[in-house]
Amino acid sequence: MLSDNDRSGPFWTAMRGDAPMPPAAATLGLEFIDADPEAGTIELAFTATDDFVNPMGNVLGAFLAAMLYDTIGPCVLATLGPDEFQSTLDLNVNFLEPVVPGRLIGRGRIVHRNGDIVRVEASLADSQGTVLAVATATAKVIPFGVTAV
Amino acid sequence: MLSDNDRSGPFWTAMRGDAPMPPAAATLGLEFIDADPEAGTIELAFTATDDFVNPMGNVLGAFLAAMLYDTIGPCVLATLGPDEFQSTLDLNVNFLEPVVPGRLIGRGRIVHRNGDIVRVEASLADSQGTVLAVATATAKVIPFGVTAV
Repeated sequence: MLSDNDRSGPFWTAMRGDAPMPPAAATLGLEFIDADPEAGTIELAFTATDDFVNPMGNVLGAFLAAMLYDTIGPCVLATLGPDEFQSTLDLNVNFLEPVVPGRLIGRGRIVHRNGDIVRVEASLADSQGTVLAVATATAKVIPFGVTAV
Repeated sequence: MLSDNDRSGPFWTAMRGDAPMPPAAATLGLEFIDADPEAGTIELAFTATDDFVNPMGNVLGAFLAAMLYDTIGPCVLATLGPDEFQSTLDLNVNFLEPVVPGRLIGRGRIVHRNGDIVRVEASLADSQGTVLAVATATAKVIPFGVTAV
């Protein structure tokens, strides 16, 4: 795990706002709130826009799954060095409540790491704290710059 | 299951191009290719744009999960009447190969239906037929217009 002094590299540069967010993260309106690499936790915000809704005006679960994916990746990245990256191998989502467009909070937590394999859980909540969807995932730590899944 | 004569209602109107795609589907570049409601299968296309990529230029798995979600929903909807809709309860995705922006093909198949609960599987492939990601999901059939997960 990293100390604050080790928060270097492209991930932290983007999270600090010193470089643009990656396009996918920007599309989901990702904003960094907080991370505790020692505890393996992260808190992010997303913006569900009117581009993400179904015919009833609710946010399609597709984009909730996307936000949970983009909570889990950063949760792992926050614990890695600048020469490491991560590849998400699987993502299992449960959709709990209907969601209206707006600001959503993603929280991730590393449950276990064994070698290069990391088990992560995440939740997505509205601004009142109601949990809307939850996910678990398996990620693999890989060298930075390797083309991965 | 429906005969072709029963292909009425808002789902088929959008799939035929007689009404705009729902916003979420449009964001993912969803295009209807074919469906066989008797067999419980569907084939759709999506467009992974540069808005969906990670820092390496690969399509973030977040958006592959979103496309698989939006293959599974239509797969179920294609088998329903115009007064029915569906709610996806869970989505389990395996990410198999790195993905570059472009046109992707989503294929869905209903594995089992027991009452209002439907088990669906889906895959996402590139234009060469290489399978990039696969998913399974549980969906619930609900009345059209009900606010659901």
